Amino acid sequence: MENFIARAEKTLARIHELAAISEDADGVTRTFGTPAFLRGSALVQSWFEQAGLRTRLDSIGNVRGRLVSQHPGAKTFVIASHIDTVVNAGRFDGPLGVLLGLDLLESLRARNVELPFHVELIAFSDEEGVRFHTTYLGSKVVAGSFDQSLLTKTDAAGISLTDAIHTMGGNAATLAADAIPADQWLGYFEAHIEQGPVLWERNIPVALVTAIAGQRRVELTFKGMAGHAGTVPMHMRQDALAGTAEFVLAVEQFGVERNTALVATVGKLDVRHAASNVIAGEVTCSLDLRSADADELQTAYEALYAQADAIATRRQLSLHWNLIQQTAPVTCDAGLNQHLTRAIADSGYPAVELVSGAGHDAVPVSFVAPATMLFVRCFKGISHNPLENAELPDIAAAIQVSEQFMLNLIAAN
Amino acid sequence: MENFIARAEKTLARIHELAAISEDADGVTRTFGTPAFLRGSALVQSWFEQAGLRTRLDSIGNVRGRLVSQHPGAKTFVIASHIDTVVNAGRFDGPLGVLLGLDLLESLRARNVELPFHVELIAFSDEEGVRFHTTYLGSKVVAGSFDQSLLTKTDAAGISLTDAIHTMGGNAATLAADAIPADQWLGYFEAHIEQGPVLWERNIPVALVTAIAGQRRVELTFKGMAGHAGTVPMHMRQDALAGTAEFVLAVEQFGVERNTALVATVGKLDVRHAASNVIAGEVTCSLDLRSADADELQTAYEALYAQADAIATRRQLSLHWNLIQQTAPVTCDAGLNQHLTRAIADSGYPAVELVSGAGHDAVPVSFVAPATMLFVRCFKGISHNPLENAELPDIAAAIQVSEQFMLNLIAAN
Repeated sequence: MENFIARAEKTLARIHELAAISEDADGVTRTFGTPAFLRGSALVQSWFEQAGLRTRLDSIGNVRGRLVSQHPGAKTFVIASHIDTVVNAGRFDGPLGVLLGLDLLESLRARNVELPFHVELIAFSDEEGVRFHTTYLGSKVVAGSFDQSLLTKTDAAGISLTDAIHTMGGNAATLAADAIPADQWLGYFEAHIEQGPVLWERNIPVALVTAIAGQRRVELTFKGMAGHAGTVPMHMRQDALAGTAEFVLAVEQFGVERNTALVATVGKLDVRHAASNVIAGEVTCSLDLRSADADELQTAYEALYAQADAIATRRQLSLHWNLIQQTAPVTCDAGLNQHLTRAIADSGYPAVELVSGAGHDAVPVSFVAPATMLFVRCFKGISHNPLENAELPDIAAAIQVSEQFMLNLIAAN
Repeated sequence: MENFIARAEKTLARIHELAAISEDADGVTRTFGTPAFLRGSALVQSWFEQAGLRTRLDSIGNVRGRLVSQHPGAKTFVIASHIDTVVNAGRFDGPLGVLLGLDLLESLRARNVELPFHVELIAFSDEEGVRFHTTYLGSKVVAGSFDQSLLTKTDAAGISLTDAIHTMGGNAATLAADAIPADQWLGYFEAHIEQGPVLWERNIPVALVTAIAGQRRVELTFKGMAGHAGTVPMHMRQDALAGTAEFVLAVEQFGVERNTALVATVGKLDVRHAASNVIAGEVTCSLDLRSADADELQTAYEALYAQADAIATRRQLSLHWNLIQQTAPVTCDAGLNQHLTRAIADSGYPAVELVSGAGHDAVPVSFVAPATMLFVRCFKGISHNPLENAELPDIAAAIQVSEQFMLNLIAAN
């Protein structure tokens, strides 16, 4: 284990060095294409080069480095995560997977392992989607599913994605050339902090990710009748906030009663023209539904719509229900999962299988290639927050398991 | 009735003329001491003078007009309401009572009725409390209960109440001299729109107000743990919004189950750092409790605190409970109520008794003098809104009943 601790220390030092590059002095902020982002990707690119990888920056700003196999007809296995961040982010969400991958490639190269496939390490340029409100720009280009119509989208300053790409030195017209063709993919592996509390609570360092949840995002509004809180008797009210409160509890109860990996959340709630002495006339809230099971997601969606509708009818409120986003669940590849499960067992860690409730670059990749993910315990499950932390022994465990996984994979191909 | 219709038309014309004076071009806004307010009070003062009342503007800006009794030792009976407004107000809240009173005094004078008591008509200068966030400035001065410490309060522009009084031509040092001494009061009568929907729903023009509800206003905060809506399993959540939703429903259920005139409302609710994909970590909401029964108010306050506390404990949330305002209930005077009840019956209207859920100038007056109020039906119960309306036949009914009440009172003294 000592060897892995030393490698984890080096990886952690790189994570901290990269985190020091930020748009703001406080916290970490490196959104796609900003000067801080470009300084960060230049640092990552220099590390790739120092590691002896065949390195380049592609048009969407992904940093890419390859260990090339001498086998004729060798396919490509990708190890990746992202180096863009949310605003006021943590240090580990993304960079952990990239820099753990860098360590793996350094180790493979140092061992002089004969590779039956090319190994490509990628630092994706846009997973969080903060700047253009569209996620996975980097991995979609590599997966060949980039939507050209996004090029005209503009950021808050009115700069188009096309212009942002050109400013970074890329060329929006040749993005398709940066894809790995579907028939060239062998598979995909991503290590990432869990961003949830399960491993922390169970005191276990790593877990296999079996699936990435699909999602439905709804914005709904209950409208009743605003009124004076002192003068309208209780039985004459059409209180939009009381109706919404009933919906919030129905959503929670539905999630708890399923007792599956489904999660159901009302996180946003706005009372229009709110005042303590006014009965709420209009309330808008969000609904966020996630499940790895497409049927369960659909069932939940329909059941909660029915509940909202019943609440509105019973309370004489009107209901406006607006589905604003949906993504399908992704199942990780059974074959790769088996290799990873064995690597976890061989490394002496308990077997834990998790569904990822958050989206990852593995989602767009999974449509063209077998993909799997390893989750790493993080402090109290906190993420998207400067308090985000992964401890040294857990990073060492992740390196140990990931290396074993790669060795298993090499032996099997 | 025809005579009363003509008088109502004249009263309504004055209400519209006064409503045309506003800080804004749209709607009606005349907050205490502003130029629009002063133009409005000058117009009201000119009407008082034309009616032959002994008229003056007191130091807090109340317009006061007297019909003087020749009886030795005559006490004073006050008819009043207010002429300040909320922002973007209606036309009737306040002015109806003042201008209906003006009509009554004109009629008494025209009839040459021999008065056994002085009758004083007052247009109070500040009931809504918009500018200095303190209500009843005008009526508290007249009732002798003005709190001198309020003089240093400042408005949004940093102007003190003392300076506002001086700008209006008043003198903050002599406010006490404008009080009617406690032993000089005979009683108090105020007509006011209901500001609630009961008379509208029951299709009845006027009602006796038996009491003005006391009030408790609470601001409470539930704190849990913010988290990612996709990654924290349902059973590991400490969702502050779900806890608050439970409280909102507990408040509503408590009010409905009492089946009394108690009203209980959560009108304001703020999710801190709200986002659709974040489990709410902290939510603040308001609680507005009103009842004419002091014991019921206390019972409700304690019961709802206990419920909030139980919700917080069960859900592992912390609770911060902050009582920010309380006023005691006021019971209208039994003797005056009897005169008013008889006047309603003599005028041929059904007997309806209401508790006022909103506060009125009758509240501070009631601590020094017998007080009663007449509610007038308003359109759908809408108030504090440009849609606020009282129809001509209802104003006529209110004049008829109020005049009968005054004649009953004169006959009895």
